[in-house]
Amino acid sequence: MDVFVSGVGITPFGKHIEHSLKELLLQAARDALRDAGHPKIDAVFVGNFMGGAIANQEILGAMLVNDLELGHIPSLKVEGACASGGIAIRQAVIGILSGTYENVLVVGGEKMKHAATDVVTQAINAAMDNDSSEKNAGLTFPGFFGLLANRYMYESGATKEHLANVVLQNRSYAINNPLAQFRKPTTMEEVMQAKQITEPLGLFDCSPITDGAASVVLSRNPSAVKIRASVQVSGPTNIQDLDSILQIPAIINSGKLAYEQAGLGPSDIDVVEVHDCFSITELLAIEGLGFSNRLEGWRFIEEGQAGINGKTPINTSGGLLSRGHPIGATGTAQFVQIVLQLRGEAVNQVKNARIAMSQNLGGTGAYSVVHVLERV
Amino acid sequence: MDVFVSGVGITPFGKHIEHSLKELLLQAARDALRDAGHPKIDAVFVGNFMGGAIANQEILGAMLVNDLELGHIPSLKVEGACASGGIAIRQAVIGILSGTYENVLVVGGEKMKHAATDVVTQAINAAMDNDSSEKNAGLTFPGFFGLLANRYMYESGATKEHLANVVLQNRSYAINNPLAQFRKPTTMEEVMQAKQITEPLGLFDCSPITDGAASVVLSRNPSAVKIRASVQVSGPTNIQDLDSILQIPAIINSGKLAYEQAGLGPSDIDVVEVHDCFSITELLAIEGLGFSNRLEGWRFIEEGQAGINGKTPINTSGGLLSRGHPIGATGTAQFVQIVLQLRGEAVNQVKNARIAMSQNLGGTGAYSVVHVLERV
Repeated sequence: MDVFVSGVGITPFGKHIEHSLKELLLQAARDALRDAGHPKIDAVFVGNFMGGAIANQEILGAMLVNDLELGHIPSLKVEGACASGGIAIRQAVIGILSGTYENVLVVGGEKMKHAATDVVTQAINAAMDNDSSEKNAGLTFPGFFGLLANRYMYESGATKEHLANVVLQNRSYAINNPLAQFRKPTTMEEVMQAKQITEPLGLFDCSPITDGAASVVLSRNPSAVKIRASVQVSGPTNIQDLDSILQIPAIINSGKLAYEQAGLGPSDIDVVEVHDCFSITELLAIEGLGFSNRLEGWRFIEEGQAGINGKTPINTSGGLLSRGHPIGATGTAQFVQIVLQLRGEAVNQVKNARIAMSQNLGGTGAYSVVHVLERV
Repeated sequence: MDVFVSGVGITPFGKHIEHSLKELLLQAARDALRDAGHPKIDAVFVGNFMGGAIANQEILGAMLVNDLELGHIPSLKVEGACASGGIAIRQAVIGILSGTYENVLVVGGEKMKHAATDVVTQAINAAMDNDSSEKNAGLTFPGFFGLLANRYMYESGATKEHLANVVLQNRSYAINNPLAQFRKPTTMEEVMQAKQITEPLGLFDCSPITDGAASVVLSRNPSAVKIRASVQVSGPTNIQDLDSILQIPAIINSGKLAYEQAGLGPSDIDVVEVHDCFSITELLAIEGLGFSNRLEGWRFIEEGQAGINGKTPINTSGGLLSRGHPIGATGTAQFVQIVLQLRGEAVNQVKNARIAMSQNLGGTGAYSVVHVLERV
């Protein structure tokens, strides 16, 4: 049985102090339902990470069912750190494959901007294992990815300017995206001179704190976009034990399984959204998903291969770095962007895109979700 | 396709200050895996409510996959307030029905006792809609169920002593359960004279704050216990708008659907675990699931019909009131108890139990999950 994407919706990403988490989710959901032509919805899956910790708001599924007047259908929230949105989509796919549902509404969202930065940082740290030596050594997420960036520069010969190229590439896309958090052009000088967060990552190398939501409707009935692969893997939560900290097993394994399920390879992918929570993470995803050789992701970016006319346009939405990273929304927002690419309706539209991929990472490699979609 | 229960595991319920949330989940999971004979597990679903809010711990799925060395299989956390555990089980059932998995490990757990009571109370309030007038009127969960209890006494003629009968009934079961939080015999006098939490509910009418975890392994391969029905519904999150606040739609609808799916009625159920977060909630469940007429649940208890030799033994584990209520664990713990009943291995074993039911409520009726199991 095939699963199709019948509708997508998304809010502007940025600061929504005046809206509750529920209101953000509702806005994206109503968009997606309208786009899908208001089919009878059989279940609601919500992707969200820190609603309980910083917004004192759970039961997001039931609230949506109520406010959207969907009857008494099943609903729930799915948590998988920054991969919550992608995992929620995959659960919906499985629900349809099981024959239990015909149409499922998936909504990912997060409200973060109202909270103090240290509160948000602490909440994000829940995506590391409290019992692990890494967390107990005092690592935060920027610290963790900073370590990887240092090692990457050491092994590959890349410089901080090469990391900055990722930022500039994604910003060049976000400039055209009216829903992106950062739409102002920037320069190598500005990126290099920005406040250091953790050596070698500056402010622009780190995805921002963002409010926003994105939604998709999946259906058994055929429509223009079909799901070719929907895979999720778990990965090590203590990454220091790996042979190489630059080969995150979750990214690599999710890519492998997705190519296998889709019967495709990296060269078949016309456009992709990868999880660039930090500039370094995008390079590791480019390599882990096979778009470039190992330790050559920085060259791929430098040569313009991720650009709109490159081999594989990457993060045409602006990515987490410039579109923004409302944690639970990210996986669904990536999915929305590749659906729009396949429908020919995207910002930074890639010509004749027929196969698209999204990759959504959780924690320090605890989860990775990959979807491959096809225009039919 | 049928789904079977191949293993169950559970920790003692109570205070586990020395163990992390992960360790509690691992303990229950290892029990269940051993009980199931260590099949190859294809996915892990975790039911948990407030790990992020009060234990700063999410990514529970990936941590279990890692520590149990299950490879890089998919895993995730499911949240549906106090129904998180039940919903996690249902997601596992759907995963098997879809053909995606053969064996799924489900673990529900919560760690609450380390936190101050006001912190826990605030975290529990995330199970109400922040935008609703009920929450904004200052209602807490005891306040909410206290309102229902007052209305119940007004409409039914039941007294506080009849509510206390629920407490005494469940305690009489818990006395025999070595894993229960409260195993000391109690008396009508003690229950009636206990500190008032919210009129008319005293301390004993309210389920306690508890640490604990429970786990089940579901499989496609036949074993002694089969799932006859697995249903979840969402319900109103603003209950004051209902025609009758004593008929919680989620309970009633989940019961109806479960009987329909199982092709059975209330009189076919040999033993049941219902969601007694408060004494009044057990009465509403007895009535909502059709074990007694409306407004006569208190008579059902008074007449001993929920006793071990009664018409329908209810909460033979001791229930949430006496076994304890580690929120995310509750749905899985109820399920464990009915599986043990069908295997003839339960505390307070019901003779020749062949069909059993569990019912797990979330929020103020935001969710209800019902499972019906059969000994085959």
